[in-house]
Amino acid sequence: MATLLKAKPVLSEIYTQLKFDIEKLGKMPCLEIILIGENAAAEWYVSNLQKKGKKYDIKVNLRRFSNDISQLELENVITELNNNINIDGIMLQKPLPDQIDEHVINSLISPFKDVDGFHPVNLGKLMLEQPALLPCTPQAVIEILRFYQIETTGKHIVILGRSNIVGKPLGLLFLNKTLQGNATVTTCHSKTENLPAITLQADILIAAIGKPEFVKPEMIKDNSIIIDVGTNLIKDASGNDKYVGDVDAEAVYDKASALSPVPGGVGSVTTALLLTNVVKSVKLNQNKLFY
Amino acid sequence: MATLLKAKPVLSEIYTQLKFDIEKLGKMPCLEIILIGENAAAEWYVSNLQKKGKKYDIKVNLRRFSNDISQLELENVITELNNNINIDGIMLQKPLPDQIDEHVINSLISPFKDVDGFHPVNLGKLMLEQPALLPCTPQAVIEILRFYQIETTGKHIVILGRSNIVGKPLGLLFLNKTLQGNATVTTCHSKTENLPAITLQADILIAAIGKPEFVKPEMIKDNSIIIDVGTNLIKDASGNDKYVGDVDAEAVYDKASALSPVPGGVGSVTTALLLTNVVKSVKLNQNKLFY
Repeated sequence: MATLLKAKPVLSEIYTQLKFDIEKLGKMPCLEIILIGENAAAEWYVSNLQKKGKKYDIKVNLRRFSNDISQLELENVITELNNNINIDGIMLQKPLPDQIDEHVINSLISPFKDVDGFHPVNLGKLMLEQPALLPCTPQAVIEILRFYQIETTGKHIVILGRSNIVGKPLGLLFLNKTLQGNATVTTCHSKTENLPAITLQADILIAAIGKPEFVKPEMIKDNSIIIDVGTNLIKDASGNDKYVGDVDAEAVYDKASALSPVPGGVGSVTTALLLTNVVKSVKLNQNKLFY
Repeated sequence: MATLLKAKPVLSEIYTQLKFDIEKLGKMPCLEIILIGENAAAEWYVSNLQKKGKKYDIKVNLRRFSNDISQLELENVITELNNNINIDGIMLQKPLPDQIDEHVINSLISPFKDVDGFHPVNLGKLMLEQPALLPCTPQAVIEILRFYQIETTGKHIVILGRSNIVGKPLGLLFLNKTLQGNATVTTCHSKTENLPAITLQADILIAAIGKPEFVKPEMIKDNSIIIDVGTNLIKDASGNDKYVGDVDAEAVYDKASALSPVPGGVGSVTTALLLTNVVKSVKLNQNKLFY
């Protein structure tokens, strides 16, 4: 029977630290969210950020744009926000419409205000183990392991998924010389041959592929630790909406030693870390601390 | 008996392309090398670059500094070279003296002139699979596999070594969606437990740990491909200097299906790719092509 690695106590710790850091700042941090078009999940996420901002004294501004915004218009908005000294962090809510070149926009956002941690220079610094604004989802996985005192040195960690926002940066963090690093890391994906033979070796398995309940008990090692990064909307037996992860949680529950639930796991911690990044960005913009 | 993946024909192809590209450029590319202190290996490498530069119409300037150069002095030199429009590429020969903060200097070199590919923004773009100046050693491994038509899709590649200049960037390149990418990648290092159990699974094994003849036949799979990135100076039986790789080449020769030799393998291709990066940097500085 697996221990559930719930987000709740992790969040409590992160928010306590956040409150403390904001009081010390001497100014109210300001996050600017850019929301393009209409998307229910995005609306939910943004309103959650606004609620949390209110609670923890972070100003959260929302700028809405219609789905036909041009690349140039969006670039002008980013440049204006980069130059506005009252704005500490810039978050560009995804997905973006097809006419927008996401790489160009990610590179245009000032690395000092890049609370998503998607700017190439921040990802490069992540690789170099230098201080930087780090992407929130990989950080959330690390925070959960840290909170539950799961050390990874010498452990074999298998990551399912090679995305730029989870799989690749997380693989690099696990190679870092830290308590939640120093691991042997294998990254698998859609082209991997004989996948179960590899996942069966994992002391810690990270599922980040966006396939509902993909990971089955026959793919995991006895007493392994399973971190579920997926959030997939499916219909339950009665036809109602239901969020499930990339792991068949019920089925692996007896075989794993620990499991992060969905919902109430990695995703919840991600939101908190975005706000933590806003506070980090204040310090960056004030002091150009670590660039 | 292993096929030897020799550098020679790979180099011939790279230099043919280089010559063609330089003729098309309409200007003589210029590389500025910064050499600090005295170091036999560095002198050899630099003089080799100068020779090759002469042969292929690349101007190679050498600036020497004494070992007690200060951080500020070096930063001023870099800034001057960044601003000099006649200089296309800047190479800072390693190792650097202790008083120099290597991370700061790597970040200061213009990403457009960063022929070593060590700037965080270039490493970030490497991760994002965007065009960039890429570090030469990982690129050399990819070029050798490409030349010898070794496709890696779905293959299990095990990398020994997690350095910022080889192991980490190479692991990311192997995850790219390319013919020499799409692999399942495992990165091992000094903290890896039960190393042979992992290396024995490798269809392709990359050794980049700087330990002479570390990889023995009992660590490799039958008919696997072994790429040796190490260059270690040791004494032979008669007490003479001798360069060997991280692989016990003689011992694995009968078990592997292919093996890159040392010397005459990855290292030789690295030099050629540095010059290729100089030409790339000309295009970058002229057109700001891919930033």
